[in-house]
Amino acid sequence: MANPVNPPRGMRDFLPADKARREHALGVIRSVYRAHGFDEIETPVVEDYARLHAGLGGDNEKLSFSILKRGIRPEQLAAANEAGDAERLADLGLRFDLTVPLTRFYASNRAELPPVFRSIQIGPVWRAERPQKGRYRQFVQADIDIIGEAGLLAEVELVTASAQALAALGLEGCVIRVNDRRILFGLLAHCGFPPETHDRALITIDKLDKIGAAGVVEELRGIDDAGAARIGEVLAAVEPAVAGDGIALTRDAITAVLPAGAAEEGVANLSALGDALDGALPAGVEVRFDPTLVRGMGYYTGTIFEVAHPGSGSSVGGGGRYDGMVGRFLGQEVPAVGFSIGFERIVDLISLPESTGPESVALVHDADVELADLLALKRALVERGHRVRLEKRQKNMKALLSRIESDGFASFANVRAGVRSADELELRPLGG
Amino acid sequence: MANPVNPPRGMRDFLPADKARREHALGVIRSVYRAHGFDEIETPVVEDYARLHAGLGGDNEKLSFSILKRGIRPEQLAAANEAGDAERLADLGLRFDLTVPLTRFYASNRAELPPVFRSIQIGPVWRAERPQKGRYRQFVQADIDIIGEAGLLAEVELVTASAQALAALGLEGCVIRVNDRRILFGLLAHCGFPPETHDRALITIDKLDKIGAAGVVEELRGIDDAGAARIGEVLAAVEPAVAGDGIALTRDAITAVLPAGAAEEGVANLSALGDALDGALPAGVEVRFDPTLVRGMGYYTGTIFEVAHPGSGSSVGGGGRYDGMVGRFLGQEVPAVGFSIGFERIVDLISLPESTGPESVALVHDADVELADLLALKRALVERGHRVRLEKRQKNMKALLSRIESDGFASFANVRAGVRSADELELRPLGG
Repeated sequence: MANPVNPPRGMRDFLPADKARREHALGVIRSVYRAHGFDEIETPVVEDYARLHAGLGGDNEKLSFSILKRGIRPEQLAAANEAGDAERLADLGLRFDLTVPLTRFYASNRAELPPVFRSIQIGPVWRAERPQKGRYRQFVQADIDIIGEAGLLAEVELVTASAQALAALGLEGCVIRVNDRRILFGLLAHCGFPPETHDRALITIDKLDKIGAAGVVEELRGIDDAGAARIGEVLAAVEPAVAGDGIALTRDAITAVLPAGAAEEGVANLSALGDALDGALPAGVEVRFDPTLVRGMGYYTGTIFEVAHPGSGSSVGGGGRYDGMVGRFLGQEVPAVGFSIGFERIVDLISLPESTGPESVALVHDADVELADLLALKRALVERGHRVRLEKRQKNMKALLSRIESDGFASFANVRAGVRSADELELRPLGG
Repeated sequence: MANPVNPPRGMRDFLPADKARREHALGVIRSVYRAHGFDEIETPVVEDYARLHAGLGGDNEKLSFSILKRGIRPEQLAAANEAGDAERLADLGLRFDLTVPLTRFYASNRAELPPVFRSIQIGPVWRAERPQKGRYRQFVQADIDIIGEAGLLAEVELVTASAQALAALGLEGCVIRVNDRRILFGLLAHCGFPPETHDRALITIDKLDKIGAAGVVEELRGIDDAGAARIGEVLAAVEPAVAGDGIALTRDAITAVLPAGAAEEGVANLSALGDALDGALPAGVEVRFDPTLVRGMGYYTGTIFEVAHPGSGSSVGGGGRYDGMVGRFLGQEVPAVGFSIGFERIVDLISLPESTGPESVALVHDADVELADLLALKRALVERGHRVRLEKRQKNMKALLSRIESDGFASFANVRAGVRSADELELRPLGG
């Protein structure tokens, strides 16, 4: 380590100004989601090792941090060495997302939850990725999920609540790109890809941003040569519209860019979603059809969406329907749809609102002010609703006041010995 | 595991009602501490393994959860097996308190912090203890600390802010027991214990609650026979007062129960603290001198305190001065004093306030209501400030309404097909 007092690699300390901005953003998100009928829950940050490696987390499973069993016996250590597998010594792990814990939570607590459960989960997750700009090993996710509703109502509530949260954060110009996994599978079938190749083909199409249409077609050739050429035609038809103003989420606009009859179920779903969302989104948030949207996780079964914002190079949120997953622990299918805000991406895009209510005050006191007097003055101002910090007078008052201001205080007052009533204090604005 | 969908051993899921209560309590604590001039920070939940085992955490170090290095090579596994030490395979660990991370944070970020730094830290910590009623393996701590202030002002600000937070939570009848480590060391010296035995002797005195005065004297005999008898005399003099209304934090009351001249520095400190706090504590919070208070952690150097509440068998908070610890990473002494609220103990003692503002509403809708209409009604109510949940009508309306009420909703409205304006809805109160 370059510096032995740094936080662990890829993780961050948050200083007061950062922390205040984060808490403000989380407060806005919470309050919008609660108003829209969602209920916040919390699960432990660790889950059983086996659950974190049950195949629900995709590539994230490989990135999970594992926790050593306590009191490992020599024979366990020897056996792990014999097998060449240190992970045998782990029984728990840090969660890498909030979805795996949610499915476990739902299975464990279903009897106490309403039949349609709208959950909010906000908290840190951990992934042992190579740290890089904007990518951290501990980061916050803010998820909402609706479990138990098979109908489109779930998607509609999820999308409107999410859009409202983004708007309430002051993020203007958000575009929600929408697709349906069934459209993707329908397209692949239409182009001649056998069903068993669909998952592989989607992984390739998901790389469109990085390798371009030609790269996608080239890679698909390895799966099915004729099919790859046909996909290329679809991409060529779609690309100008997606790159331009996007494709409206209406039946006409959707079918215009798809081969006729390719994926009726998905088309019906998306056009009904577009109808329901018409006029229901806050100003500054738009919804667009994007037949090339894949979303990485293999568990999506229907509608998928992703939110783009002009201030961020990558998506600021996304989600979709994942009907097969929650039921895995219950032995029955439970419909579910979820949306996750990319909190670390949006928190840098927003600014704190100007404070309302009584100002924050720094009480700059002389060394000879009686402790009890100082305390009484502080208390009186706190009771009037001020936020109060005590500061010792120093020779360089200009430097002191400049620091206090940069710490976020709006005003200060000098406190001399003998002052006992807050009414005697003169509150003076800082900066301005 | 009895049930494969339970959270990991000793850890908990929080359902909506629990989570709401917890967030409410944390909000109250945060807002009082902020008003008193403290600033919230956040550190990662994991720290380097070496830092968590540097001797600052006392017995908690043994209870820490360790995280496996990623990509362990066969020779590392073999070496750990050879040494019989699985912990060699760990490079990180979950924090067991918020104090060790705070000292690291301060050393890392000091240049950007004010000279007297008043910090708030709220977050989970982990200890691999044997789970039992009221003791969990993941639990929340809510700490404030003042770093950089050697004078009594720090203790006074800390105690008043803490008392105010407990009062704001509605916890009446709190008693803050106060002592000074220098009084304990002075007492031991006065009774004839050589300095090198003091730490051991304090561990014994700390057991007073469990083994009684006779037990303490018996155990101290193993250290110093004559000293043990003298400590017995002090305990006998103190016990009735402590067991009764307690000992006021005034010079007269403090010196009345101590051997004359036993610990002048500590006595002067505590009587000045008592003077400053006189009249400064909220109604329902009292401060008392308790010469038998030890506090477990070895790092305390001066004032120590612990908060008792009639609703809880054990303390609901505590802290003290620890001047030697923060400076360890800086190579210089940095004064510090901290207070930690036992969040898991207080959260069960408080009740949520009656909600103010617009009521929460469940919209009970027929199956044939248009999606777009339903959404518009929900949106209109949300815009008026309501919290709104959609509920499908079911045959057994009584059961439905009863569940909605127990989920915390205050009112409901029936939505029939064709209703398009929120003004047409009749909001009806639930229960009551």
